[in-house]
Amino acid sequence: MNVSALLTSAGINTVVCGVLFSLYSVLRKQPNLVSVYFGQKLAQVNSKRNDPFWFGRLIPSASWIVKAWEASEDELYVNGGVDAVVFLRAVVFSIRVFTVAAVICLFLVLPLNYFGKDMEHKHIPEEQLTVFTIGNVMEGSRWLWAHCLALYIITCCSCLLLYFEYKNITKMRLTHITASHCYPSHFTVIVRAIPWVEEESYNDTLTKFFTDYYASSYLSNQMVYQSGAVQKLMSDAEKMYKMIRSPHMDKHCVPRFMRCGFCGGTAATSFKILTDEPKITRRESCFDGSDLRKKECGAALVFFRTRYAALVASEALQSPNPMSWVTDSAPEPCDIYWSNLCVPYRLLWIRKIAVVVASIFFVIFFLVPVVFTQSLVHLDKLTKMFPFLKAITKRKVMEQLITGYLPSVVITLFLYIVPPVMMLFSTLEGAISRSGRKRSTCVKVVYFVIWNVFFANILTDAAIEHYQVSITKLGDAKHIPNLLAKAVPTTATFFMTYVLTSGWASLSVELIQPFPLICNLFYRFILRNKDDSSYGTYTFPYHTEVPRVLLFGLLGFTCSILAPLILPFLLVYFVLAFLVYRNQILNVYVTEYDSGGLYWPIVHNATIFSLVMTQIIALGVFGLKESPIASGFTFPLIIFTLLFHEYCRQRFHPVFRKTPAQTVIEMDRKDEHCGRIEDIHAQLQSAYCQFRSKSLNLHKSTEHNKIESVLADSIETGDIVRLDDLEYIAPAVLGKRSIS
Amino acid sequence: MNVSALLTSAGINTVVCGVLFSLYSVLRKQPNLVSVYFGQKLAQVNSKRNDPFWFGRLIPSASWIVKAWEASEDELYVNGGVDAVVFLRAVVFSIRVFTVAAVICLFLVLPLNYFGKDMEHKHIPEEQLTVFTIGNVMEGSRWLWAHCLALYIITCCSCLLLYFEYKNITKMRLTHITASHCYPSHFTVIVRAIPWVEEESYNDTLTKFFTDYYASSYLSNQMVYQSGAVQKLMSDAEKMYKMIRSPHMDKHCVPRFMRCGFCGGTAATSFKILTDEPKITRRESCFDGSDLRKKECGAALVFFRTRYAALVASEALQSPNPMSWVTDSAPEPCDIYWSNLCVPYRLLWIRKIAVVVASIFFVIFFLVPVVFTQSLVHLDKLTKMFPFLKAITKRKVMEQLITGYLPSVVITLFLYIVPPVMMLFSTLEGAISRSGRKRSTCVKVVYFVIWNVFFANILTDAAIEHYQVSITKLGDAKHIPNLLAKAVPTTATFFMTYVLTSGWASLSVELIQPFPLICNLFYRFILRNKDDSSYGTYTFPYHTEVPRVLLFGLLGFTCSILAPLILPFLLVYFVLAFLVYRNQILNVYVTEYDSGGLYWPIVHNATIFSLVMTQIIALGVFGLKESPIASGFTFPLIIFTLLFHEYCRQRFHPVFRKTPAQTVIEMDRKDEHCGRIEDIHAQLQSAYCQFRSKSLNLHKSTEHNKIESVLADSIETGDIVRLDDLEYIAPAVLGKRSIS
Repeated sequence: MNVSALLTSAGINTVVCGVLFSLYSVLRKQPNLVSVYFGQKLAQVNSKRNDPFWFGRLIPSASWIVKAWEASEDELYVNGGVDAVVFLRAVVFSIRVFTVAAVICLFLVLPLNYFGKDMEHKHIPEEQLTVFTIGNVMEGSRWLWAHCLALYIITCCSCLLLYFEYKNITKMRLTHITASHCYPSHFTVIVRAIPWVEEESYNDTLTKFFTDYYASSYLSNQMVYQSGAVQKLMSDAEKMYKMIRSPHMDKHCVPRFMRCGFCGGTAATSFKILTDEPKITRRESCFDGSDLRKKECGAALVFFRTRYAALVASEALQSPNPMSWVTDSAPEPCDIYWSNLCVPYRLLWIRKIAVVVASIFFVIFFLVPVVFTQSLVHLDKLTKMFPFLKAITKRKVMEQLITGYLPSVVITLFLYIVPPVMMLFSTLEGAISRSGRKRSTCVKVVYFVIWNVFFANILTDAAIEHYQVSITKLGDAKHIPNLLAKAVPTTATFFMTYVLTSGWASLSVELIQPFPLICNLFYRFILRNKDDSSYGTYTFPYHTEVPRVLLFGLLGFTCSILAPLILPFLLVYFVLAFLVYRNQILNVYVTEYDSGGLYWPIVHNATIFSLVMTQIIALGVFGLKESPIASGFTFPLIIFTLLFHEYCRQRFHPVFRKTPAQTVIEMDRKDEHCGRIEDIHAQLQSAYCQFRSKSLNLHKSTEHNKIESVLADSIETGDIVRLDDLEYIAPAVLGKRSIS
Repeated sequence: MNVSALLTSAGINTVVCGVLFSLYSVLRKQPNLVSVYFGQKLAQVNSKRNDPFWFGRLIPSASWIVKAWEASEDELYVNGGVDAVVFLRAVVFSIRVFTVAAVICLFLVLPLNYFGKDMEHKHIPEEQLTVFTIGNVMEGSRWLWAHCLALYIITCCSCLLLYFEYKNITKMRLTHITASHCYPSHFTVIVRAIPWVEEESYNDTLTKFFTDYYASSYLSNQMVYQSGAVQKLMSDAEKMYKMIRSPHMDKHCVPRFMRCGFCGGTAATSFKILTDEPKITRRESCFDGSDLRKKECGAALVFFRTRYAALVASEALQSPNPMSWVTDSAPEPCDIYWSNLCVPYRLLWIRKIAVVVASIFFVIFFLVPVVFTQSLVHLDKLTKMFPFLKAITKRKVMEQLITGYLPSVVITLFLYIVPPVMMLFSTLEGAISRSGRKRSTCVKVVYFVIWNVFFANILTDAAIEHYQVSITKLGDAKHIPNLLAKAVPTTATFFMTYVLTSGWASLSVELIQPFPLICNLFYRFILRNKDDSSYGTYTFPYHTEVPRVLLFGLLGFTCSILAPLILPFLLVYFVLAFLVYRNQILNVYVTEYDSGGLYWPIVHNATIFSLVMTQIIALGVFGLKESPIASGFTFPLIIFTLLFHEYCRQRFHPVFRKTPAQTVIEMDRKDEHCGRIEDIHAQLQSAYCQFRSKSLNLHKSTEHNKIESVLADSIETGDIVRLDDLEYIAPAVLGKRSIS
């Protein structure tokens, strides 16, 4: 691939991005699509406004970019919770690091690479891209110290930034914990594996245990019921209701769109008959009838009088049999994943093992499309092997399209099925919270993406490029660094196009939201339904976006000194990502649950991995280029990076695993001081509700709409979203802002 | 090596063992050597008895074997604590498993191996040992199902036994925890990394923190002082004392022998001037003068009112900064390792990393003697390479000695330096308890021994045996199973001699205790000192004995179906070990500290590792022998073993990491019920003493001697040891027996 092919690819992508971004700026102004681009909550307000048609609606504008740029971190926190801030910090971190890297590598390393060999240079557009990589530097060159210096600067810069980010995010997490005085989860412990005692219900056993051992701090408990049984009851009732329903209630019965069956979270069955009784209390809808007692699971939520008591109970080993009375700190009511609570605890360990095995098989199976994709890049070698391909590649444009664009499109499409599968795995694994499930999925996808995009591409490339590298040799640990050193510079071409297609295009897709858009249009024009108040709302897909950003970080680090041409494209990607994700967090996604910044350790670990990977590859390259001094200087850098990682793990990570006792005790004291502890206890009793009917949400929405519609008139369309009803959409920030 | 060479080796070892065992039975009857064979405590009693000479003293007898055999588990528990029982259970487990294995393999597998090929068999003594291994079975033999069946029976049997052992030991650990109501450690928490506040002593900061956050349960605290400073003070005082001492005090100033500088534990400097004031209290000797306040470390012992409060405080993350206010559950007073408490906590993580790196280097360096040793076995190949060796090996006896005996003697001698080095590493690692340090050493030695004895021998053997296997190929993961499959049957010869020499001989050495014996004789005949009341006492060297037993277990498992001839020798070893270790625990070693059975998880994990190793090797062998059915049946066995391991880890292991809250709360209740809580609190204040002077021990011993000498007259010499003063020598069983 030469420079002009790369520019073709860049051109195509820039045009595509430009068109899609403009399209977005137009589409977001259409009142009919507000439900797609401003989340569910505003859709309900605006459907009542009936905006008239004005010409400005059809002119692309950059106002959303300005708004996204101007939003402060506090606004993001209020709209997206700690997780959103952490995610954007990861993007900002990447922008900072790669700005430094781009400056150094483009002005110091790139010229050295280009003039690394005594050769006659062609006109730049016809120059092969390999001329710009370290592969062009002569063996034993005295200029390799510059590469080594660049590596030092990039590593130090990254570590410094990582340290301060970790420090700030730790502080943010602690502030988030102390921010509100009424998170029910602080007072709650999830108890699983309650032992079965003959002639006693689980509830009795549980009450006896906790009144016995935690007499002073135990408040009450709430059993978890087998969801299957109750769900059946509910669906039966719903069927019966449908048979007798009257036409005027029709509008509440629209189906709810789910972006992804696994991520949706909210129960798909809705119990609508209650809609007509807006004064129903939550308590009554909790289905705690006596016949349900038989359907109790061996799991329960136990409420304590103080946060500290709950913390202590959640961390202790309760019983001499570690397989009974297992306690965990509870997630928030919106975050809890009820159906997994019913899974018998004694099966969980085997489920986890099964999921690990399944994941490994899934990753292995996935090498097939990756190898297929990568082979397209090496079309010239393929045509030698399969001559019939020559006819297709005769045309210059065709060849450039196939080598420059098609591979990454294919791999991107294949990668779309990964997150749902991983989400399924995480569900089977037995996560008790939706945020925990998403985080677990995120980790799996990170592993997947690093293995299947990064390593698989490099290794298959190596296998095709150097025929002598047999597949068996890939298993040999000793060859890996040399192999990587040979393969990474040559694979950099593919990674550049990957950044252009997968990176840039994915951001446009993220902006346009094609799936909800198509659903909306299909719904509006095919089904002719004018009411769009009942679309599902989506939470931010951290499990796909975090791995994506981390993968591009890995590509950036490993290619930085070897093939610096990738850096400008990456920087453009990260800047666009910064704007797009800010916009999406502010406007599109609702925050139903929050992990409190638990994504940062994933980002940190992946970044350290990328750094060490870069250094190992550099070590291999310096070895191949016969520069013992550069290799000698790289080795201590690896040790330094690993030590830094271990230090951060010691210094910050425990706060992400356990809540500090000091913090919790001080919060308890403040409550006592303010005398609100009784209120909190009263609220606790009704905070968690396993079988909450949809009608409650609808009822709440109706009230909310009244408030919102008053507010809405005074505010411009694009801004309203930031002033949404926090009690409803962002329970995580409940304490920070009131409705007014 | 042929059968007669093996029998030569066995003969030599049997004779050596017989002689040494008889020698022991004589030596133990000598009143002068009671201090060597019955621990320090009885030495003091018997030196006053002045036994007359009687003829029976010179006749070898088997009475000690009978006594060791007859001792009950309770007696062992009282004398050696949980750890001793756990260790002996590991030996019993090995006896049971290898009895089953020996029966199956000798009667089913061995004949199949012997008649595996159509060949003319020589007279058995001249038969090569390889004829008895699986190497003699033809490729594609239909009889390999028998090997597979044997493997199944051995695995199932081991897993079943392991399960019940783990269950019983878990129960024993819990019983041990609840057995006594006055372990000070239950009420104590070690706090490290106390933050330094300007113009405040650590003590003030600590008191403020705990009275603030643990007001209801905090009792008091005791600071840890920099030992260097106080040690200097003490040695200065001692010097001064020596200058002015009077002759009649001489007898207390004998030097104390330490078996090993690292294991000794008790401070070597002794502050004798206090001996003349027998009424001194412990409190006064604690050197808590006001000038010591400046020498405070950032560490302390904090006492709580209840066990539960201490448990909770030890498990929680105290502060938002995980590097300050680090809490751990405290070891028992005799177990605590004071000097490591002063190590700044922020340095510990780097120390741990340094130790890991150092251990790895140590292991690599150690391959040199191992390779040298192993090359001796292949003398015939060596002589081809180095012809000058021929002159030495001309004599038949010489050759048999060199191939059969010398290699394992050399390796055994080399291995003697390993435990002290590993103990040094564990000390540097920052263990806060002596038992924890020993356990950590044990783990390191297990890794070391498995790598350097098992793998290194097999792989160097493979490298010498098959010249085509280059060292680079050893790094290749894919070749390992095949390589092991080829090498293990041929290395079995060496392992047999290793069991004979290292195994049998080590037991004789353990019985004779050469080092204390020589010290005693040197002391008595060269220094002409008649008083032997002041020899050091030794705790059981779990860090050398546990790895030894585990290594022989690994050898037994891996060789069982491949070279079953090793099993009878192993069985003899384990039976002897059973008798010898029981005798040693009952008579020689004192139990100053106890880890409460924490050695069992090490034994369990190592056994599972051995099983899986066996199965992988069998898989390789079945592959080489072209028996797809046997390979196919072995694969699920590996999965089953790993699942069983995971189950045990879930079911039992948490109890070895944390103390169950239920147990602790019930103990607290019992205390309250009995009204002894105040007494316990009073005792707590003086339980831990960092700078206890030796004089207290001497004083105690003097009192103890009076009681003991009364008792001693009525009891036969060999039995006395079991009735020792438990308060003094076995604080772990304090609650079980009183002096009377």
